[in-house]
Amino acid sequence: MDEDKVYKIVELVGSSPNNWEEAVQAAVAQASKSLRDLRIVEVMKLDARINDGMIVAYRAKVKLSFKYQKE
Amino acid sequence: MDEDKVYKIVELVGSSPNNWEEAVQAAVAQASKSLRDLRIVEVMKLDARINDGMIVAYRAKVKLSFKYQKE
Amino acid sequence: MDEDKVYKIVELVGSSPNNWEEAVQAAVAQASKSLRDLRIVEVMKLDARINDGMIVAYRAKVKLSFKYQKE
Amino acid sequence: MDEDKVYKIVELVGSSPNNWEEAVQAAVAQASKSLRDLRIVEVMKLDARINDGMIVAYRAKVKLSFKYQKE
Amino acid sequence: MDEDKVYKIVELVGSSPNNWEEAVQAAVAQASKSLRDLRIVEVMKLDARINDGMIVAYRAKVKLSFKYQKE
Amino acid sequence: MDEDKVYKIVELVGSSPNNWEEAVQAAVAQASKSLRDLRIVEVMKLDARINDGMIVAYRAKVKLSFKYQKE
Amino acid sequence: MDEDKVYKIVELVGSSPNNWEEAVQAAVAQASKSLRDLRIVEVMKLDARINDGMIVAYRAKVKLSFKYQKE
Amino acid sequence: MDEDKVYKIVELVGSSPNNWEEAVQAAVAQASKSLRDLRIVEVMKLDARINDGMIVAYRAKVKLSFKYQKE
Amino acid sequence: MDEDKVYKIVELVGSSPNNWEEAVQAAVAQASKSLRDLRIVEVMKLDARINDGMIVAYRAKVKLSFKYQKE
Amino acid sequence: MDEDKVYKIVELVGSSPNNWEEAVQAAVAQASKSLRDLRIVEVMKLDARINDGMIVAYRAKVKLSFKYQKE
Amino acid sequence: MDEDKVYKIVELVGSSPNNWEEAVQAAVAQASKSLRDLRIVEVMKLDARINDGMIVAYRAKVKLSFKYQKE
Amino acid sequence: MDEDKVYKIVELVGSSPNNWEEAVQAAVAQASKSLRDLRIVEVMKLDARINDGMIVAYRAKVKLSFKYQKE
Repeated sequence: MDEDKVYKIVELVGSSPNNWEEAVQAAVAQASKSLRDLRIVEVMKLDARINDGMIVAYRAKVKLSFKYQKE
Repeated sequence: MDEDKVYKIVELVGSSPNNWEEAVQAAVAQASKSLRDLRIVEVMKLDARINDGMIVAYRAKVKLSFKYQKE
Repeated sequence: MDEDKVYKIVELVGSSPNNWEEAVQAAVAQASKSLRDLRIVEVMKLDARINDGMIVAYRAKVKLSFKYQKE
Repeated sequence: MDEDKVYKIVELVGSSPNNWEEAVQAAVAQASKSLRDLRIVEVMKLDARINDGMIVAYRAKVKLSFKYQKE
Repeated sequence: MDEDKVYKIVELVGSSPNNWEEAVQAAVAQASKSLRDLRIVEVMKLDARINDGMIVAYRAKVKLSFKYQKE
Repeated sequence: MDEDKVYKIVELVGSSPNNWEEAVQAAVAQASKSLRDLRIVEVMKLDARINDGMIVAYRAKVKLSFKYQKE
Repeated sequence: MDEDKVYKIVELVGSSPNNWEEAVQAAVAQASKSLRDLRIVEVMKLDARINDGMIVAYRAKVKLSFKYQKE
Repeated sequence: MDEDKVYKIVELVGSSPNNWEEAVQAAVAQASKSLRDLRIVEVMKLDARINDGMIVAYRAKVKLSFKYQKE
Repeated sequence: MDEDKVYKIVELVGSSPNNWEEAVQAAVAQASKSLRDLRIVEVMKLDARINDGMIVAYRAKVKLSFKYQKE
Repeated sequence: MDEDKVYKIVELVGSSPNNWEEAVQAAVAQASKSLRDLRIVEVMKLDARINDGMIVAYRAKVKLSFKYQKE
Repeated sequence: MDEDKVYKIVELVGSSPNNWEEAVQAAVAQASKSLRDLRIVEVMKLDARINDGMIVAYRAKVKLSFKYQKE
Repeated sequence: MDEDKVYKIVELVGSSPNNWEEAVQAAVAQASKSLRDLRIVEVMKLDARINDGMIVAYRAKVKLSFKYQKE
């Protein structure tokens, strides 16, 4: 049993005016400020906000796992 | 890339003796004590606890998103 | 409305060199160091890491619920 | 082959400040102004909008079927 | 191995003219006439019957578990 | 609350050497020997058994609902 | 960006006393009276109506895509 | 049409203090006391009950099919 | 009950030779010619057409919601 | 551990101008030319190609399992 | 029955340092070296590998269908 | 674009008289005889064969990815 190798998964939504790659990178960048050892980000859902018939924000709901510690 | 616009999603279970609307509101009220800028609550699953053939607690598993900050 | 009975759900990944029961127990043990009143752990997904044609780590993605408090 | 018995399914979102039953009824009422022979409404998803920690609108995504005609 | 602790799950549809809480309670009440030790009822699907643009019956498909015995 | 209008759902697998329509009809015919008021049969899954590169049995897993009574 | 190549998807339910192939064909035939350029029909769900222990109508819920125009 | 070859599917939850294999076997053993011709058991969901940070019961929700007879 | 706030959801497929962001934008642009108040576009599925080992069209199946009116 | 009893699953699409039973049989017949010990074919999805408002090809996406050998 | 028109589906994972469009194209390009008549590639899942808070590889799990031949 | 880093995914079913860990290991061992660079095995489904009320074979349907080469 490896208690030291337990990972926690968080669900985030990132956003970008340009594309979904940047939306996911925004979520990763923000998370990496406080979470250690991020390695994989999974895309759960993609959508976008529209204004006047134009997409103004690409959004990605993602899951990120990191080394678990007491909160 | 908008690091300032990253949202985090949490999953809660609220409960009420009366109905599912109150069960969801209970989860929202508790979360809003510490989380800022709650706007949408999504219902993931509804169930209920039974005692002696009567429903004694309506429960709702929900997802709530809020502005992400370092934990 | 029962604000005192709101539960939070976290998603963890536990690991064991031996089997999935120990992988789940590892996640539960680590979580119980900081979270109160854990009662049910749900298995979301099972996988394993392979090295040289042998499984070297059984992993279980699980969901755990516990009494919600202000973070 | 029964061409006269073809049904079309539409997906709507209804809303109510009070509960999900009224949210679904709102969608049904609006649809019944123009669609004939509505008989079953299926709930696809429930969510709610929050303001200041309170639910201000219960929303229900529903599917409704009705007798198909040339558009 | 705990043969005495085996549970069986049945799937029912309850109905109410008023709301889904009563629809689920109707299924629970009917089931509790013959089944022992009902504790949790899970909602699988919600729909409703419509007549003349009005909902006339709220219906809930639910799963109920109870202590298993030879049939 | 309409206790008299509670329905129970059973899951069956029907089989036919010819096609899936007959496989479903076989399940319905067998069920209708003991269950009252069958009205809708839903197809959950289709498969077939193969022998010597030929399909020898079309099988359909179905759900059937009927008026609930004490077992 | 190809605005001229946008397709719309509609969901229909076709019906036949004989089999699901005819049920799907009924939906296609009715849709093709008003929709141009139908090419693929996807089966979403199969069910059937029962009367007196016999299937009286095979029904297929399908999705059809066609060239999108202003409604 | 083979009415004699109709199978019924039941959903059970088995439990064991040791592992999920025994939990499934417990459900099978209990079912085989009254049901004939059990051949395949499918695992639908795995979870476990926790006490004091330790798993005290492994539980498996399973589906079992058997030869259908009038109830 | 808010009949004025009922939304309708349509499912479209957009296409672009360059990337999925443009494919979604194509669907949004075409829809906004006739539909009012488009705000969110959800991605349901991504695929692509291939010719001679090269992707020649990125396609996105999306859902768009807009204010419902009598058709 | 039974290395000799490992099965491989392949996913095929069969086609027929007449019905889905023949579409599945076509996939089975083609696969059985090179694969040994085919026993069960599972239907994953049904669709059809349309020409001039008529179905011209019934298609079935299926999964087939067979005894695994070194490729 | 059209044995000549049977297609096989393979599942691949492509990768790119730049975006998901290139990740899918990488899988298509590699597959087209040995498989004939590739026409549609479906995206099943998107994820990415992270290093030091930056995405270093966009990955796409895809399904590709091609004309089936004896292996 | 990294054509050299394309992976293929295969779906296998492994079997063991003792437990699911060995069933998965059996599939991995058989696959590793011919496939290079196996690293992760994902569990898709668990079931078991029953004889005389006892489980005689634990089976696991798994997905394995490996470095793609021309077949």
